[in-house]
Amino acid sequence: MTLVIHGGAGTIVKENMTPEKEAAYRQKLEEALAKGYSVLEKGGTSLEAIVAAISIMEDSPLFNAGKGSVFTNEGKNEMDASIMDGKTTMAGAVAGVTNIKNPITAAMAVMNQSKHVMMAGAGAEKFAKQVGLEIVDPAYFHTDSRYHQLQKIIKKEEMQLDHDGDQGSLKNNYNDYKYGTVGAVALDQYGNLAAGTSTGGMSNKRYGRIGDAPIIGAGTYASNKACAVSATGHGEYFIRSVVAYDIAALMKYKNLSLSQAADEVVMKKLVATGGGGGVIAVDKKGNIAMPFNTAGMYRGYIKAKGKAKVFIYKEE
Amino acid sequence: MTLVIHGGAGTIVKENMTPEKEAAYRQKLEEALAKGYSVLEKGGTSLEAIVAAISIMEDSPLFNAGKGSVFTNEGKNEMDASIMDGKTTMAGAVAGVTNIKNPITAAMAVMNQSKHVMMAGAGAEKFAKQVGLEIVDPAYFHTDSRYHQLQKIIKKEEMQLDHDGDQGSLKNNYNDYKYGTVGAVALDQYGNLAAGTSTGGMSNKRYGRIGDAPIIGAGTYASNKACAVSATGHGEYFIRSVVAYDIAALMKYKNLSLSQAADEVVMKKLVATGGGGGVIAVDKKGNIAMPFNTAGMYRGYIKAKGKAKVFIYKEE
Repeated sequence: MTLVIHGGAGTIVKENMTPEKEAAYRQKLEEALAKGYSVLEKGGTSLEAIVAAISIMEDSPLFNAGKGSVFTNEGKNEMDASIMDGKTTMAGAVAGVTNIKNPITAAMAVMNQSKHVMMAGAGAEKFAKQVGLEIVDPAYFHTDSRYHQLQKIIKKEEMQLDHDGDQGSLKNNYNDYKYGTVGAVALDQYGNLAAGTSTGGMSNKRYGRIGDAPIIGAGTYASNKACAVSATGHGEYFIRSVVAYDIAALMKYKNLSLSQAADEVVMKKLVATGGGGGVIAVDKKGNIAMPFNTAGMYRGYIKAKGKAKVFIYKEE
Repeated sequence: MTLVIHGGAGTIVKENMTPEKEAAYRQKLEEALAKGYSVLEKGGTSLEAIVAAISIMEDSPLFNAGKGSVFTNEGKNEMDASIMDGKTTMAGAVAGVTNIKNPITAAMAVMNQSKHVMMAGAGAEKFAKQVGLEIVDPAYFHTDSRYHQLQKIIKKEEMQLDHDGDQGSLKNNYNDYKYGTVGAVALDQYGNLAAGTSTGGMSNKRYGRIGDAPIIGAGTYASNKACAVSATGHGEYFIRSVVAYDIAALMKYKNLSLSQAADEVVMKKLVATGGGGGVIAVDKKGNIAMPFNTAGMYRGYIKAKGKAKVFIYKEE
């Protein structure tokens, strides 16, 4: 049994951290790992462990998912999530939802209780309500710190040139306060893999923008034939590079190992195009990979009879 | 220069056709090919040719895209489209839009005039209006024939068992009047590939369902390093199998030819999971592939100095 989680990648450097903030992140990552792993230990599936671990991070204001989600340009919180079952390759996703307390549970419900893979907006919210998920007032997702970030970004963008036409790049646009995601991948005692991802998307996003988190193949992918992957980073690049599935394809078709495949995609291909971010991944043998090409990535893992290990910066 | 188009795959059999209807389909496919190819001949790019060809099919009530789109369960027309540039691997997509006359032009604008890859719903419509695309009253998309289809499906489903939890299958759910898509792939005189797809989605769809058409990697993919692909079929399966990118990955990583890769995915892998549909594809040498595992697929191609060739049934 193996569980790996991430809480977003970006320009996460020690200089911008306080000891208290750092401790809070490490504690919350440990809590998510402990909660998810206890599900696996009790005989739960990799899917159930993922939902448990991600829900903890969604409920924390520290991460850009659930409570703590960044704001759109219009001052709203619009969330995306997806999940995939490596055993069946069934999948579920929601995009642009505003009142579902734990978007990852909605992705799970779409997979298990509908004929569809992806639902968006008001339709997805209607479905979530019908199947009995916890619905909250959109104000629940409001956090002052994220709202102040939005104001800062809007101010800054007003002073900058218009970047329309530029799909962004690793060099000039990548900031952890603008992007961020949480995710989990797991291998359960039945030998089944699963992956899940949840996000508030891009701060100051406009026009109903959808990133890679709810896109099967880009932000999330799982198949027992290869691996389970959850990504975090500049979504536009991750969609165009079909990041999560590309790692699986390199394993299946080129016989690369998990870490070779993950490094090839994150440290070479994404870097070459300018796409900032990282992934977490696990294969059928319980091998894990957590490469990222940014300054830091909130991440951690726990393996059979091991202690949870969590990391933030590159040099850890 | 090569242009390949499709107008949807499904249970398209001669018994259900009239000679007049069949002639109308063939004439419209020829018109779309002629229009798109004339763009290529005049020195236009593969992207421009695709938009031209797809716009013709979107403007026709014969196909499930643009005018002629199927209805949602709530009696609305919600459309999706995507486009990808093989030269730059830039991409654009819109989902769930209701008032943009040609959704493929909106996908193109997202790619060329925004930082994003994917926009949904009202946000995407706002963007389309801002960049000056033609906006129409949603009533423009109403066609009586599609509305009657919806009523028939609703009546039939009321008499059937509830299929919740079933993501559908090739055997029992695949009907051309429920699914359907249009798409185009092209190789221009500059040696650049491109792919585009546009759809009204699934008839009687609920809950803001999004299919594979606007998903880069699933319904649409293009890279000069491999091929350009546009898919049509039961979207849920195509998303889970990352169909369009999988064909490119088999070419890049296993050195399969275009037709070997397309057959592997459409005729073996999709058939094994029960996913009904087909793809059109073209590579850098102008080789084309048009495999489908359903009874028929509206399709056609035109090559340098050749005549447009169009097909509907399997045995053609």
